[in-house]
Amino acid sequence: MVLRTVSALMFCFVLFAAILPAAADEAPISEATEECLGCHTTFHPGIVADWFKSRHATVTPAAARAKDELERRVSAAEIPEELRATAVGCAECHMLRNDQHADTFDHNGMDIHVVVSPDDCATCHSVERDQYRQNTMSHAHGNLAINAVYQKLEQSILGPFEARDSRIHLGTANDLTRAEACYSCHGTRLRVTGIETRETDAGELEFPVIDGWPNQGVGRINLDGSKGACTACHTRHRFAIEMARKPHTCKQCHVGPDVPVYKVYSASKHGNIYEAMKAGWQFENVPWTVGQDFEAPTCAVCHVSLVVDEDGVVVSERSHRMNDRIAWRQFGLIYAHAHPKSPDTTKIQNKDNQPLPTAFDGTPAHDFLIDANEQARRTALMQQTCRACHDASWINGHWQRYDNTLRQSNAAVAVATGLMSEIWQAGYADPTNPFDESIERRWSEGWLFYGNSTRFSASMAGGGDYGVFANGRFQMSQVIMDLQDWLNQRRAIEKKAE
Amino acid sequence: MVLRTVSALMFCFVLFAAILPAAADEAPISEATEECLGCHTTFHPGIVADWFKSRHATVTPAAARAKDELERRVSAAEIPEELRATAVGCAECHMLRNDQHADTFDHNGMDIHVVVSPDDCATCHSVERDQYRQNTMSHAHGNLAINAVYQKLEQSILGPFEARDSRIHLGTANDLTRAEACYSCHGTRLRVTGIETRETDAGELEFPVIDGWPNQGVGRINLDGSKGACTACHTRHRFAIEMARKPHTCKQCHVGPDVPVYKVYSASKHGNIYEAMKAGWQFENVPWTVGQDFEAPTCAVCHVSLVVDEDGVVVSERSHRMNDRIAWRQFGLIYAHAHPKSPDTTKIQNKDNQPLPTAFDGTPAHDFLIDANEQARRTALMQQTCRACHDASWINGHWQRYDNTLRQSNAAVAVATGLMSEIWQAGYADPTNPFDESIERRWSEGWLFYGNSTRFSASMAGGGDYGVFANGRFQMSQVIMDLQDWLNQRRAIEKKAE
Amino acid sequence: MVLRTVSALMFCFVLFAAILPAAADEAPISEATEECLGCHTTFHPGIVADWFKSRHATVTPAAARAKDELERRVSAAEIPEELRATAVGCAECHMLRNDQHADTFDHNGMDIHVVVSPDDCATCHSVERDQYRQNTMSHAHGNLAINAVYQKLEQSILGPFEARDSRIHLGTANDLTRAEACYSCHGTRLRVTGIETRETDAGELEFPVIDGWPNQGVGRINLDGSKGACTACHTRHRFAIEMARKPHTCKQCHVGPDVPVYKVYSASKHGNIYEAMKAGWQFENVPWTVGQDFEAPTCAVCHVSLVVDEDGVVVSERSHRMNDRIAWRQFGLIYAHAHPKSPDTTKIQNKDNQPLPTAFDGTPAHDFLIDANEQARRTALMQQTCRACHDASWINGHWQRYDNTLRQSNAAVAVATGLMSEIWQAGYADPTNPFDESIERRWSEGWLFYGNSTRFSASMAGGGDYGVFANGRFQMSQVIMDLQDWLNQRRAIEKKAE
Repeated sequence: MVLRTVSALMFCFVLFAAILPAAADEAPISEATEECLGCHTTFHPGIVADWFKSRHATVTPAAARAKDELERRVSAAEIPEELRATAVGCAECHMLRNDQHADTFDHNGMDIHVVVSPDDCATCHSVERDQYRQNTMSHAHGNLAINAVYQKLEQSILGPFEARDSRIHLGTANDLTRAEACYSCHGTRLRVTGIETRETDAGELEFPVIDGWPNQGVGRINLDGSKGACTACHTRHRFAIEMARKPHTCKQCHVGPDVPVYKVYSASKHGNIYEAMKAGWQFENVPWTVGQDFEAPTCAVCHVSLVVDEDGVVVSERSHRMNDRIAWRQFGLIYAHAHPKSPDTTKIQNKDNQPLPTAFDGTPAHDFLIDANEQARRTALMQQTCRACHDASWINGHWQRYDNTLRQSNAAVAVATGLMSEIWQAGYADPTNPFDESIERRWSEGWLFYGNSTRFSASMAGGGDYGVFANGRFQMSQVIMDLQDWLNQRRAIEKKAE
Repeated sequence: MVLRTVSALMFCFVLFAAILPAAADEAPISEATEECLGCHTTFHPGIVADWFKSRHATVTPAAARAKDELERRVSAAEIPEELRATAVGCAECHMLRNDQHADTFDHNGMDIHVVVSPDDCATCHSVERDQYRQNTMSHAHGNLAINAVYQKLEQSILGPFEARDSRIHLGTANDLTRAEACYSCHGTRLRVTGIETRETDAGELEFPVIDGWPNQGVGRINLDGSKGACTACHTRHRFAIEMARKPHTCKQCHVGPDVPVYKVYSASKHGNIYEAMKAGWQFENVPWTVGQDFEAPTCAVCHVSLVVDEDGVVVSERSHRMNDRIAWRQFGLIYAHAHPKSPDTTKIQNKDNQPLPTAFDGTPAHDFLIDANEQARRTALMQQTCRACHDASWINGHWQRYDNTLRQSNAAVAVATGLMSEIWQAGYADPTNPFDESIERRWSEGWLFYGNSTRFSASMAGGGDYGVFANGRFQMSQVIMDLQDWLNQRRAIEKKAE
Repeated sequence: MVLRTVSALMFCFVLFAAILPAAADEAPISEATEECLGCHTTFHPGIVADWFKSRHATVTPAAARAKDELERRVSAAEIPEELRATAVGCAECHMLRNDQHADTFDHNGMDIHVVVSPDDCATCHSVERDQYRQNTMSHAHGNLAINAVYQKLEQSILGPFEARDSRIHLGTANDLTRAEACYSCHGTRLRVTGIETRETDAGELEFPVIDGWPNQGVGRINLDGSKGACTACHTRHRFAIEMARKPHTCKQCHVGPDVPVYKVYSASKHGNIYEAMKAGWQFENVPWTVGQDFEAPTCAVCHVSLVVDEDGVVVSERSHRMNDRIAWRQFGLIYAHAHPKSPDTTKIQNKDNQPLPTAFDGTPAHDFLIDANEQARRTALMQQTCRACHDASWINGHWQRYDNTLRQSNAAVAVATGLMSEIWQAGYADPTNPFDESIERRWSEGWLFYGNSTRFSASMAGGGDYGVFANGRFQMSQVIMDLQDWLNQRRAIEKKAE
């Protein structure tokens, strides 16, 4: 095997020369980026090749800015002069706003930072950053980490556990477990904890040590204080819009039984059309033409992308505030409810002073949730996309059923919760942490998995197998029966003893 | 944003002119369809673009009828003269047999109906309609809705539920829930309940109100009395044979643990070949050439499509009576059994006078099921497809195992059912509705999910992971153990009290 | 329908002439293979067409051997002279080493054997055969069939079952069930049990009867005594490297909750990139160039394939000893542990004299497992592939979390096992077979499904939804709570009776 450890500098200069012409026609590569590529082409050939295929490597910000409005992929009113005329390469992002980043360090004479943040990207994509800031996802870290009730659920899942005195005692999960588990999607809080020296292929070098890294969670707390990771969906280092538009990207965090969005989609008619016909579709075009570029919606069509018809008339506008068209929050603790007003949900208080959008009896925390007018407005926005292919009688029929499913699934959760309350009142379980005992967990599955799944199936798929047998009503009704059965058994044990 | 509400008529005429040339070369668009397109291109650009890509838009019925027999996609002996020479557009389907459809209404001076039915499609595709009528799927609505035992299962799943007096009381699910859940796949019963006036982009218009709409379930009861929805598999408005031939289409209704056909397929060698190699396959050709057009079967290859070899010799004939080659029904209540004779299964009566193909003790309702000769005939038909790639020793080995799995899985269900009967006899559960108590549900999972999954795995995949750990024998054996455990606990409680 | 039973010999000669020119340009077809094709093109058109698309049909071994080392797909130092100059067709494989195969029989005057084995393939691919022999997979049959503890688990899953005297009695599964279930992936033991005469399309012919056939399990015991089936991954009769490199191939055996590798991959960032971008990738090239041919790893990239950078520098070497880079075995009975030294795991003995790599209390059977140095060596090999796209801070962060997850998941299993031990000690369950009672099965799910899933999620996906809610920590913690709950109920029943 040829050794990959090379006499670094020699090699770098050779490559340097070889690389240049490849992309130079379209967007010249800056000197700083050339220097980066000189070594990293050898050390990390995969990401470098990836970047060379990217739009960032081939179109200058100036050219991107000059496009017609509908075709424009950069939204900043003005792009800094020094960035306008070169490809958006290593240096352009990793050296941007260095003074704002706690992980900026000297790397072979260049100041760079490891973690590129939404505020860096905002240099060209400011509107998207601004919208995303108002998107619930951007607050995913704090919405979980600061919510006292959610923390009890998290603790009951992550452990560590100890079985003692006929019950399970919960410890505190370490940071590695938390980063690996919940915060993999919710986003970690990054922190520079020191500097380390590492032996590299290019010799001994110093690097910052970053706690919580690597992470591409949607609510990552970055080293410049900004929230989110554009790379959660716009995967490095190609950043292909094609990828963000495909449902596999959303699947990374939306596939488990708690938010089985991808599974529901892929069992739906829309998902079916996508899987069967996508080979002939166009995922790169901006704007994205319904019927012509694609024949059925992906997640992005309904929630994010700028969609037009063949005459260029806008069907739906681009938005990175992805709850723009979402009237209901289908999951949460523990009922479906009107969407929260603020992306920061930690301030919500229900009538029982819990930081939850509904009380355990189902009463919504109205003050913190959008009202019926705003719900209607968002629904109308969503339906505008539907109308590209469906008429009003179809759309109304769909929504009638969806509304009914929200009511029915909430009612089923209420029955389960009523039984759980009986169990708590009888002293058969301890509500101090309502999630850490066997029967509490069975109840939790009801709303966390089956209530949610039923609703997602109703909202996206228009019903079917998923909402009935594959983690839907079959399982929800079984939870209710199991709660009743457990209570009956427990009572029988007590009674027989009398 | 450009407003999509337009001064409708003006716009329509402009478009009208623009659209025509696009498709006129191949199949002229009728005047009536042109009128439809004039507006709907603006209002529903997605489906119109979809249709323009369809065979219906580009080939006249006359040209389709003139093809060589094996290449022919229309089966009617004679196509009505007025339809022969134009593209099969909006008007050709939505204005067909108007007097038969309860939803026919005046729409801008044209009589149209919303719901196109198999009997409409039969105008050109009569053989397929006739075959489908004898396919169990076409009776999927009634087979569920009219079967008293299945209705108990449906009720226990859909609710609504009330917990009172230490047990779960079942209400009656409303029509919206039923349409959203079971009948999403089984098909709703459509009914015109009135006329409504809606404000549309083209001004105020009247439309029929259709109960049960939208729906594309395989057993939909249509407004002309026909059963089924061709669009369940031949998705509107492109109706691509490519899509019907891909397994994602079947997945829509066959993915849950009750009929995990897609999951089993996608974990099988056949599914593996499909996923890995399909990019180079040809899904449009009629007839479909084994080895050349595709290298491994999709669902359609074994159950529906006309397959030939490279010399045009027929390997297997097209059939829309999809149980043509199916000897066994692998699911049902509660055992695998010989396939029912009639697509209408409501008339079946077992020895205990239940409308079920087997009794709870496993005895088949022989009179209503095909006999061993017919089973052998169907198996031989299926094996004809297998033989395109496998020799007899392979095929026989496969079938030996499959037969064994049917026997073994039925035996396991019998053990579980024996335990359930003990529980009923002891009075620990109430068999009035055998599906609405916790322990009854555990038993139901046994045959509804795990028995089925094991059999599908044996029939399609040739065994493996799916039939063992992913909802197969592991879970089936656990059901048996759980039933025993529950019974033991219950007895212990009773006994200790003595 | 045209009958496929033809006057065989006539037809064969006609085809014979027609076939020859198709492939003759590149690799002449041997006379023997021509004779095979003469009939089998008619009888099994699918596999013949498949083979004609294969590399075996178009490149001679001599030409394959003459390629530059990195591009070479045959590894034998010398290829037998008689095989060098023709395509690798039917006869070249099915007539090879006939004297070694128990299923060799006379077939129309030619001696052939049905089952081609790794030792046949080794004629050209000797290095791969040698490596695979040292791969744990090659011993998959015996590692399950000979291990007394695993046999108890197998028996408790496969049955048959009898419920009698308040407990479940296990019988012995028949060979068909075993072949269909566990040994579908683990590989059956093939045995010739006789000769049968069959009526075929070419008249009456004799064939060997092979017990355990068909099977493509990774540890199949072949009729020449060799172990394994190259066709498990290199699917007949195209043997496309493209297929072996795609994750769907691994999915066949690695998708259930016991080894949910495919599911974890497909929900990971790597799987996301693969699904979204693969249409533009190159899966046929040897060597395989990172960044250029593919942009994210499939299973093969990390575990098997020869990967180079754009300058042809080797990133990772080809190996069919797939545990070369695997430091930990993430599943087993019942903890994660250092990888076994020998591919034959039947000789392992833990401190309690069980044939298991760890004791039930977690103590590893050190003597039979690789040491920390070897683990470090394997980890370093694996990281070499990671480095093609990730820097050391990323890689180290990933591995820190992975190591932590191994520890934490083992600790959770230990808590569950502690509770199970209490139950055994209290006499509430019988440890003779530790897998055949309801509560034992609940415990088994803990380590067999949820411990495993959590670890796979950590190792491949870098965490996320799968390791938390989709068969991960949520379910693992629930197992612990359920064990405690069951024990509490049981104690309460006993106590109340006192």
